[in-house]
Amino acid sequence: MSDTVEAVKAAKSASVRLAALGTETKDSALKAMASALDANRAEILSANASDMAAAEGKLSKEMLKRLLVTDAKIDEMIASLESVISCEDPVGRTMDSVIMDDGLTMYQVRCPIGLIGIVFESRPDVIPQIMSLCLKSGNAVCFKGGSEALNSNRTLFRILRDAAASAGVPAEGFVLLESREDISEILELDKYIDLLIPRGSYSFVRYIQDNTRIPVLGHAAGICHVYVDAEADMKKALDVALDSKIQYPAVCNAAEKLLVDEKVAPYFLPRIVDLYVSNGVEVRIQDGLQKYLVGFDVKVASEDDWYAEYDDLIIAVRTVKGVEEAVDFINSHGSHHSEAIITENRQTFDYFMRNVDSADILLNASTRFADGYRLGLGAEIGISTGKIHARGPMGMEGLMIYKYVVIGDGHVVKDYSGPGARKYKHIHTDAKYGE
Amino acid sequence: MSDTVEAVKAAKSASVRLAALGTETKDSALKAMASALDANRAEILSANASDMAAAEGKLSKEMLKRLLVTDAKIDEMIASLESVISCEDPVGRTMDSVIMDDGLTMYQVRCPIGLIGIVFESRPDVIPQIMSLCLKSGNAVCFKGGSEALNSNRTLFRILRDAAASAGVPAEGFVLLESREDISEILELDKYIDLLIPRGSYSFVRYIQDNTRIPVLGHAAGICHVYVDAEADMKKALDVALDSKIQYPAVCNAAEKLLVDEKVAPYFLPRIVDLYVSNGVEVRIQDGLQKYLVGFDVKVASEDDWYAEYDDLIIAVRTVKGVEEAVDFINSHGSHHSEAIITENRQTFDYFMRNVDSADILLNASTRFADGYRLGLGAEIGISTGKIHARGPMGMEGLMIYKYVVIGDGHVVKDYSGPGARKYKHIHTDAKYGE
Repeated sequence: MSDTVEAVKAAKSASVRLAALGTETKDSALKAMASALDANRAEILSANASDMAAAEGKLSKEMLKRLLVTDAKIDEMIASLESVISCEDPVGRTMDSVIMDDGLTMYQVRCPIGLIGIVFESRPDVIPQIMSLCLKSGNAVCFKGGSEALNSNRTLFRILRDAAASAGVPAEGFVLLESREDISEILELDKYIDLLIPRGSYSFVRYIQDNTRIPVLGHAAGICHVYVDAEADMKKALDVALDSKIQYPAVCNAAEKLLVDEKVAPYFLPRIVDLYVSNGVEVRIQDGLQKYLVGFDVKVASEDDWYAEYDDLIIAVRTVKGVEEAVDFINSHGSHHSEAIITENRQTFDYFMRNVDSADILLNASTRFADGYRLGLGAEIGISTGKIHARGPMGMEGLMIYKYVVIGDGHVVKDYSGPGARKYKHIHTDAKYGE
Repeated sequence: MSDTVEAVKAAKSASVRLAALGTETKDSALKAMASALDANRAEILSANASDMAAAEGKLSKEMLKRLLVTDAKIDEMIASLESVISCEDPVGRTMDSVIMDDGLTMYQVRCPIGLIGIVFESRPDVIPQIMSLCLKSGNAVCFKGGSEALNSNRTLFRILRDAAASAGVPAEGFVLLESREDISEILELDKYIDLLIPRGSYSFVRYIQDNTRIPVLGHAAGICHVYVDAEADMKKALDVALDSKIQYPAVCNAAEKLLVDEKVAPYFLPRIVDLYVSNGVEVRIQDGLQKYLVGFDVKVASEDDWYAEYDDLIIAVRTVKGVEEAVDFINSHGSHHSEAIITENRQTFDYFMRNVDSADILLNASTRFADGYRLGLGAEIGISTGKIHARGPMGMEGLMIYKYVVIGDGHVVKDYSGPGARKYKHIHTDAKYGE
């Protein structure tokens, strides 16, 4: 058995002990982790400096920015650990309870999933963020970071794991894998790893989904739409259509398409295109809309544009006959991520909300709000465009499952079958396990 | 595009309309389905008779019993449809709500998963059961039944689908695939099918998991344990250990192993083995326990026995030093399905409950209670031994996911970033969407 498999197997075994840890132990470990980051700033910064020096000239400016650790970023890591301490412990919460019969009660009790695998690139701050969320939720975690962050990851991981262990948390529950071969090896470990969360490009997520039997929660493309209804408030429509595109165009919840009800197109299109163009956005319009945009520098969109994710200052614009056509277009051309509608008509919104098959539906608000932190879910573990387990931005709840606990008094199934069988009562109650 | 792909694609497209159906439409469709079964008994029985005639001599007695449809079974189908009418509509339920800022609110709203694929053998009553649960939960469904039930499935499916359509439910939302080639074809359709639920043997479930990118909820082996603690009540221990083994040995929640605290072994083992042997159970004991069982017809277990699923009147018996060893043994040798402990000590149970990594944990109650109907979950869609989305017996809730709905008033993310940024309030409330 390789070292990697040995380490993953030990983490799986430790996951059972992590699941049973009390809130006090977990919170004191989190406090020790925050103190250790503060006490070891120089070591962290120095490890990161060597990664930065090695990456110079090899990584894009954006990637270097994500790799860089500063004192301010360490402050943020500490703040994020403290916010996890203040989160309610999700383990042991009773979700449902049923009186099955006299003296026979079922409790559905929240528990951790087990061993979580995280595959990520650059950002070393993923380690404190995910390790703290896994610890608080009672999960073991196995990290595989990118080689560009090797020294930063190794230093942060060791400091955090040792601090957690000093508070009584089993150290084997946390694993950092470093070699390039580890990635293909962990994809085979469906016997031990319960859930894989990849944080990287679409093609990277897809590669992982295609090459493992482990359940993968990740996000596919982010092709988000803004639909401006005939009953839209024009100021809100302009604000939201602009913000959804330009506030941070490189991310998956930025808008890539603007759909406009044909009834408001004649006066709305020139105003929004003017805004887009003056903010450096390239506008690609449906053929036929040129008549509304005389004098503007716009291109005609190709068929491919309606399925494209730009992640850049480009938007494709078309008209629709109303909300029904907008919904059909979004469902057939989008990526089921995040879609905004601008309307003052709540019935129109309700139709849009019920019929659009996407993780986030926004009324008169920017698609950029579709983010775990902004929605109030706490720290974001990842985003899922799948429809199983967790959908959209995923907080700590995404790391939880449940077990059924039945308390009896010598009850046997024989008494509930055949002639003269006892009948089940099946009364749902608010009773909590252990109270 | 093949007929199969066309039908599946149309079902996916109809799933959006199914998701938006009101409770009244769904319930009147369910009533129409129940009436149609009652009105078409002769046709159903005749279709089933031709399947039974063709299967005669080809299928086992058990399989023939599962294939048979009688008037009493049609009564049960009708009763099961009526019980689904009485279930609360899960669609649209608000799970969480957060005031993000003034005039900006998030609602997490329950919604159907989309298109469910069901692959099953024999039992034609799967069709009314699953079709009614999918309809009530707003999901489209694609069935692939076994060829042995071709006529029964086809007749039941047509009667039920036409009845649903007469009440305004989109008929394309329900698909029955019949040919043997369909199975490999649907495994490729991860673009349309959101979740596959196989109902069949372990090897069948495993085959499906290994050959598709669609998420699969199914159950692996059922290697369930009964642990008799030193502080067990002997009467309860005998009753539960016997019932867990013999009440229905062919199923996944029957016990395959009995673990006994060594302190009670000298007097408990002869009594339980006596009961087992007199009930026709073959007993395979850990080497060394012969001294307690002089005169009994028992075999010595091999190492393989501790990992075996018999689904038959066989049990392997060993002693452990206490609850810690019992827990370690179960976690390392079991299948994470259902485990019972017999003890009068609640702290011992609490340790067992927190540390055993299985879907169902039972105190002083038979493992055979680990079943969706008995636990009070309503009709069972399937059982999952995975730890993502749904675990253990899965009722209608297993067919649900959620969407995030954000209601704003022209809110843009720009106002929440940079200097002078507005701060999020992030107040969780009990507010319900639409109220």
